[in-house]
Amino acid sequence: MTAYRFDVLGLGNAIVDVIAPVDEAFLLKAQLHKGSMQLIDEAQAQALYDAMGPARIVSGGSAANTIAGLASFGGLGAFVGKVRADDAGHAFGHDIKAAGVSFATPPAQDGPATARCLVLVTPDGQRTMNTFLGACQNLTIDDIDAADVAASQVLYLEGYLWDPPAAKIAFVEAARLAHAAGRQVALTLSDVFCVDRHQAEFLALLRDGVVDILFANEAELHALYQTSDFDTAVTALRQEKILAAVTRSEKGAVVVKGPQTFSVPAAPIEKLVDTTGAGDLFAAGFLSGLTRGAGLERCAELGALAASEIIQHFGARPEANLAQLAQQSGLDG
Amino acid sequence: MTAYRFDVLGLGNAIVDVIAPVDEAFLLKAQLHKGSMQLIDEAQAQALYDAMGPARIVSGGSAANTIAGLASFGGLGAFVGKVRADDAGHAFGHDIKAAGVSFATPPAQDGPATARCLVLVTPDGQRTMNTFLGACQNLTIDDIDAADVAASQVLYLEGYLWDPPAAKIAFVEAARLAHAAGRQVALTLSDVFCVDRHQAEFLALLRDGVVDILFANEAELHALYQTSDFDTAVTALRQEKILAAVTRSEKGAVVVKGPQTFSVPAAPIEKLVDTTGAGDLFAAGFLSGLTRGAGLERCAELGALAASEIIQHFGARPEANLAQLAQQSGLDG
Repeated sequence: MTAYRFDVLGLGNAIVDVIAPVDEAFLLKAQLHKGSMQLIDEAQAQALYDAMGPARIVSGGSAANTIAGLASFGGLGAFVGKVRADDAGHAFGHDIKAAGVSFATPPAQDGPATARCLVLVTPDGQRTMNTFLGACQNLTIDDIDAADVAASQVLYLEGYLWDPPAAKIAFVEAARLAHAAGRQVALTLSDVFCVDRHQAEFLALLRDGVVDILFANEAELHALYQTSDFDTAVTALRQEKILAAVTRSEKGAVVVKGPQTFSVPAAPIEKLVDTTGAGDLFAAGFLSGLTRGAGLERCAELGALAASEIIQHFGARPEANLAQLAQQSGLDG
Repeated sequence: MTAYRFDVLGLGNAIVDVIAPVDEAFLLKAQLHKGSMQLIDEAQAQALYDAMGPARIVSGGSAANTIAGLASFGGLGAFVGKVRADDAGHAFGHDIKAAGVSFATPPAQDGPATARCLVLVTPDGQRTMNTFLGACQNLTIDDIDAADVAASQVLYLEGYLWDPPAAKIAFVEAARLAHAAGRQVALTLSDVFCVDRHQAEFLALLRDGVVDILFANEAELHALYQTSDFDTAVTALRQEKILAAVTRSEKGAVVVKGPQTFSVPAAPIEKLVDTTGAGDLFAAGFLSGLTRGAGLERCAELGALAASEIIQHFGARPEANLAQLAQQSGLDG
């Protein structure tokens, strides 16, 4: 038993996903870059929504998905993120609390609407995301509870927080508080364009000791080290004094800790439906293992397992009980 | 080619579904009758929502599901139903129009919120529905466009309309307009408790010539004829001067037209996920065939096919293109 109140406290953009299947022609016509996340304003969101087919609405947000995944593994999770007190914000709050996550950030009473992400899923299962940040712009340093951060084994931050200016300040302060309490700080690079926007600053976070654990996919790692060669990127990563897990879709994941480097395969799936949340859930499984003292290989296997669950249905919140799934897969030991 | 502007015009409660898996114990504790629809007020809806797990939000409504299904078969559908001008109402309007359905009912600018149905799905795939009617109370005779009714081959009405008092008047007037224009009127009995509430009036609708085509499931038919014996109910049904299709879950469907009675089997499925919308989509397939002049057996086969699609995923709007599915199943000829 740990003395921690939370295994992981996640800080991220609180977003409701609006998911619709589209064909490739739709992306071409709307000039959208498949597989990426782009920021859009409310008018663009409205125009894109009008053009989309019938949609399902489910809670999302990268770090929020990760913490919901951690809770599904039986972990103690908390989430900090800003919604507005509107229908979507109410749904977001309901869903994350119903998933067993502690969520106490007060909703904004005015200002922009709760953030939404229009997620377009092509027949190959790839998702293209279009995010209206809305109320996430209102997340500030005042939303960080120092006691909660100090009581969490790991603070988990998403790179997307670098987009709303006030959230970036909250991010840095939360990391400072975590380290002051002797906790670990994890970062996910979020998206290749997000890395492009903030490359120098993200690299500085690793090198200045702000971040101890890094999650990235292959494309994000390439963007971070401005290379198109995976081995070059991994070699660079080995020089950082951090633990890193790099996901490579169907090729599995590579874990790097200084000179130590190893791979785990992707978990088998029956049918790829929607890749949304694959990275988020990999992080959930990995952190679930890590905060329980599992070895790094087991951590990565748990990550791969959670990712395999999430990509076989629409939406980025787990539908299966991940603790049961881990048990069935012999990964609970 | 027909001279009709619409193959089917549906009139129903415009509802957004909030769907969550629950276990059997949840239903017991909440004293809910599995498989039924019960009406709840806004406070009850809030309390139940707070107790539910993470949910997905998708458009629903019985007749609306049917018309969306008809459109997926390539049919020309129109829907009349009342939402409020709120987020859920906006989503409902988006989804039905994005499905290719004509939807022009003006949203209420004030009064109760857009209707929502809290759909609890047990591991056996059965759904238990809890409906807050909200803005549906505001559907009135003024929302019926006589020209649209006259321009539709079939007017499709849901029994649930008998619950909001003003909608019932709109229902009767729409049926009158349809018959005045020489069109056919179809009714779905909606739910066993709905039939219990309105049994004598529903029976009168059949016997007074208000309804030409009846859709019901086995339990609803039993409630209509106040018997627990299927053969007794079917014998009674044969006496009515109507065309009737009775769905029997995995036992398929029985079609009755006076002395003519035949059965079609259920279409095969891989995995039962959520029965929500099974009857709605059976009606979609059946009416799709009927309005194109198919024989009754083919109509019922199309109904069974559409029902098999809808019960293999959460939510009551088709995720597959039903026209393609019919073609792949050799039912398009």
